[in-house]
Amino acid sequence: MPREITSFSNDTVKRIRALRDKKARRAEGLFLAEGLRIIAEARDEGFLPELIAFAPKGAEHPLAASIIEATEAAGGDAILTSPDILSKMTGKDNPQSLVAAYKQPDTSLAEIDRSKADLWFVGERIRDPGNIGTMLRTADAVGAGGLILVDDSADPFSVEAVRASMGALFTNQIAQASWEEFVPWLRSGPSQLVGTSLQTDHDYLDAPYAAPCFLLVGNESQGLPEAYEAECDLLVKIPMAGRADSLNAAVATAVTAFQIRASWRNR
Amino acid sequence: MPREITSFSNDTVKRIRALRDKKARRAEGLFLAEGLRIIAEARDEGFLPELIAFAPKGAEHPLAASIIEATEAAGGDAILTSPDILSKMTGKDNPQSLVAAYKQPDTSLAEIDRSKADLWFVGERIRDPGNIGTMLRTADAVGAGGLILVDDSADPFSVEAVRASMGALFTNQIAQASWEEFVPWLRSGPSQLVGTSLQTDHDYLDAPYAAPCFLLVGNESQGLPEAYEAECDLLVKIPMAGRADSLNAAVATAVTAFQIRASWRNR
Repeated sequence: MPREITSFSNDTVKRIRALRDKKARRAEGLFLAEGLRIIAEARDEGFLPELIAFAPKGAEHPLAASIIEATEAAGGDAILTSPDILSKMTGKDNPQSLVAAYKQPDTSLAEIDRSKADLWFVGERIRDPGNIGTMLRTADAVGAGGLILVDDSADPFSVEAVRASMGALFTNQIAQASWEEFVPWLRSGPSQLVGTSLQTDHDYLDAPYAAPCFLLVGNESQGLPEAYEAECDLLVKIPMAGRADSLNAAVATAVTAFQIRASWRNR
Repeated sequence: MPREITSFSNDTVKRIRALRDKKARRAEGLFLAEGLRIIAEARDEGFLPELIAFAPKGAEHPLAASIIEATEAAGGDAILTSPDILSKMTGKDNPQSLVAAYKQPDTSLAEIDRSKADLWFVGERIRDPGNIGTMLRTADAVGAGGLILVDDSADPFSVEAVRASMGALFTNQIAQASWEEFVPWLRSGPSQLVGTSLQTDHDYLDAPYAAPCFLLVGNESQGLPEAYEAECDLLVKIPMAGRADSLNAAVATAVTAFQIRASWRNR
């Protein structure tokens, strides 16, 4: 049976609310996902939360009820509470009727088995958590293995990133590393590092992509540092037709990734 | 000379702040853009604000100073104020040091000259203003003529949409219409309506796109209504490799649009 929380000052309420901050996520090794859609996606991938909180309405859907039951059966914490207290946990006026806390996976490079996919995304100093989530969602759709975040990127376990990923956070591998760690790891196995850049005339439609391909996309406002571009085996450019000299980082990643996949269609 | 505002309760402060709400934008026929980058982009396209407000630091950049001067010369209102009052205007703790209010353009379909571009975006009930802004930014990059928003979409003149557009709001045409208005307008001239859909086996890589092509993308969670798909001349699908059954709406638009452009390369 779920336990019931009726007090705003309950410690668990504070603890869940605190998980909106990166420091607390790090300290606890947990992150939040909100809403049945993502929580169901997680379960389909074999992930049950450590803790699931819900308002009465949140347990009405049979799928939600079965996840709550499975969470308890696995030793997790199931908490029935009021919509108002759920609002406090999520910091939103109109919260989803379910919120769950999951164990953060190990994000070291050593966890990545590059043979599992022929395409990987590498984001360098990606600052917008929405972009990180969208890149994960796109990685899943295009059949990439996951996302490696290099240097000081936003937290892929933030609520915004989890939401934008639409659950792809659970289906993709995620790694975090400095550039100094990433390059030796990259070169320790087969690898083609493809950078998206304005400093090249190489049209992304005509490039010889080779698996395993690591698609590197730089910071939203600054792009890739020169030294990072120099490390690339291939630089490609998406020609711009209008006044804009750039695309949103997640869009540039998607357009290039789907072209890489298209170029391999008849191999 | 700019006039100075030193009071938080000044009417102009309240008026600018109110422009964060759609109702006030409609009533005043104005919208806000924040930050030198977008404001400079607007000027390059020939748009000066009706009103520009800035903290002392905001006028330091020569480009900002010249835009402030031009705004006054054109009869606009230039307002020097404190960073705190600018915060109040923008509703942000760390506001950009410049905020400007622009006249909303006429967004009726009649304003669109389809012969000006061979590709146009059509968004149906797009709910996320960030997606709308990103679609505008992508439209500019891919050389589309603009974005037609059908039915009950988010406001393209919201602060979030303007920001995500990175200034493309000023370089693209924007129209708003109901489906019942859109279809007769569409069919009153040459048109290929291309819908992105899961209800087709037609791979987006192998489709016969024809100009002027109107790329129709549906609501973020529901996609296109059946009747709208039935109106399309062509339905295309981006094959999904992973567990995901969809892409972010702005990403799906971009991937399809760049493929349309690519398919026309050798025509």
